[in-house]
Amino acid sequence: MTGRSGGAELEPIEPSPVVILVRPQMAENIGAVARAMGNGGLFHLRIVAPRDGWPLPRAWITGSGAHRILDNAQVFETVAEAVADLNRVFATCPRPRHIIKPVLTARGGAAEVVAAGQRGLKTGVLFGPERTGLDNDDIANADSLIRYDLNPDFMSLNLAQAVMVFGYEWWLARSPELPPRELQVNETAPATKGELDNFMAHLVRACDESGFLRNEQKRPGMVRNLRHFFTRGEVTRQELNTLHGIITEFSRRRG
Amino acid sequence: MTGRSGGAELEPIEPSPVVILVRPQMAENIGAVARAMGNGGLFHLRIVAPRDGWPLPRAWITGSGAHRILDNAQVFETVAEAVADLNRVFATCPRPRHIIKPVLTARGGAAEVVAAGQRGLKTGVLFGPERTGLDNDDIANADSLIRYDLNPDFMSLNLAQAVMVFGYEWWLARSPELPPRELQVNETAPATKGELDNFMAHLVRACDESGFLRNEQKRPGMVRNLRHFFTRGEVTRQELNTLHGIITEFSRRRG
Repeated sequence: MTGRSGGAELEPIEPSPVVILVRPQMAENIGAVARAMGNGGLFHLRIVAPRDGWPLPRAWITGSGAHRILDNAQVFETVAEAVADLNRVFATCPRPRHIIKPVLTARGGAAEVVAAGQRGLKTGVLFGPERTGLDNDDIANADSLIRYDLNPDFMSLNLAQAVMVFGYEWWLARSPELPPRELQVNETAPATKGELDNFMAHLVRACDESGFLRNEQKRPGMVRNLRHFFTRGEVTRQELNTLHGIITEFSRRRG
Repeated sequence: MTGRSGGAELEPIEPSPVVILVRPQMAENIGAVARAMGNGGLFHLRIVAPRDGWPLPRAWITGSGAHRILDNAQVFETVAEAVADLNRVFATCPRPRHIIKPVLTARGGAAEVVAAGQRGLKTGVLFGPERTGLDNDDIANADSLIRYDLNPDFMSLNLAQAVMVFGYEWWLARSPELPPRELQVNETAPATKGELDNFMAHLVRACDESGFLRNEQKRPGMVRNLRHFFTRGEVTRQELNTLHGIITEFSRRRG
C-alpha cells in the first residue's frame, strides 16, 4: 500500500504525544518506527540509551521518507530525563505483573492522550527494547499502562508495529470519525432512477424478443429479480450506457 | 513490545479472512506480514505471483515464530485464481479513482469481514505490491475497497503495517464487547468469485461474438468496467443463473 505523499513536509500536529523508545537495539527498527509515526501523524521522537548510539544512518533508510522525524529525534541517557518535561506518561507492556496502575487498551490510551492534550498537558508513550520490553524501573516512570488487545497466542509484536497501532489509534482518536461506509463518487455519477427505468425497459424488451421471458407465469418474478439486481449495486450512468450498448448489439445481430 | 508466547501452536480462528498478497517483492516483507497476521489472530495467507518465487527462506526469519502461517501459505498465479473460492473480497488501496465501489475504513472493513463470516461467507483481503499498490485489474476482483484513515501527508505505508492495522481491527471486531451488528441474511447465497468468473467469461464471449467489443483499444477497459459492475452488488448464485440464461438466449437466437 503506497501513496504519493513523501515525508519532506512532515510537521508536528499539536498537541502531539512524544514517542519514547527505551534502549532500542536495531537502527532498522528505529527507522521503521519513524515511518509508522509519519503514518499516524506523530512527530516527536525521543530515544533513551540506543544500543548502537545515535545517529545511525540505516535508520534513515528504513525511515522511508520520514527524515524530519529522525532529524529531530532527541537522545537521553535515562527514561527519567526523557520524560522530565511531560505531564502524563503511558507505558506499553504486554503483561504487567505486580504493578498497580491503570491498564488501558490502545484505543483507550489514545483517547486519554488526546484528552490530556486538550487540557494542555504534555504526554508521552514509552516503548521497550526489542525482545525484553520495558522493565519495572522503566514502568515506574509511567502514570498508566497500555496493553494492546491482540492475539494472546502470539505476542511477539515488532517495535514498529507497536508504534503503528498506537499512532493509528491516536490519529482516529483526534479526528472526527469517518463514516464506516461511504460511497466514492468520482467522475461517473450514479444513474437516476429514470435512467435505470429506461434501461430496464430496454432489457425486458430485448428479453421478450429473444424469447427469454416466454413463460408468462414466471415473467413478473423474473423481471422483478432483474430489477433488484441492477438496482443493488448503485449502477453508474456510464455503466448503463455500456449495458445498453450490449443489448443493442445483441438485438441487432440477431435481427 | 514482546511476550513469551511463540508461534508454534498458531491455529486458524474460524471464520478467518484470507490475507492475499498480490505480487509481493521482498521476502522480508512476506515474513513480517506473517508475524503481523499472528499478532492479529489471522492465519490464511495466499501469495499471488511473488517476484522471487516461493518459498523464500528469509521470510521465515522475519516471520519471527509465525512459521505455521508461512508453512501453510498458498501460491497462485493470478488474483482471480486466488479469490475463486471466496464470496466477498476487499481491496486495500489508498486513493481509488474512477472506481465506484463502497469504500470502507479499516474498522468498517473489519466489521464487514466479521459480519460476512457470521453469515457463513468466505472472505479475503487484497494487499498490493510494495511501492505500486494494487492496479485496476486487481481491484476489479474486489467487492469493496478499504482505505485506511491515516495521515494524508505521509501515505507510505509498509506492507506489514497495512496487514497489522487490518489484523488489529479484525481482532477487535470479532471480540464480543463491541456493539453487535445487524445480521443480514438472504436465502440465496452470494456467488463465489469462481462462479462470477464463469459468468464474466460467458458474457465477454457473447459480447465478442456479437461484435460489441470489436474496438481492440477500448476492449480491456470495457471488460474491466463490466467486471466492476457485476462484482459490486454481491450478485447471488440465482441471479447469475438468470443472467447466464439471458445471454444464452440472446446468443442462440442470433445464431
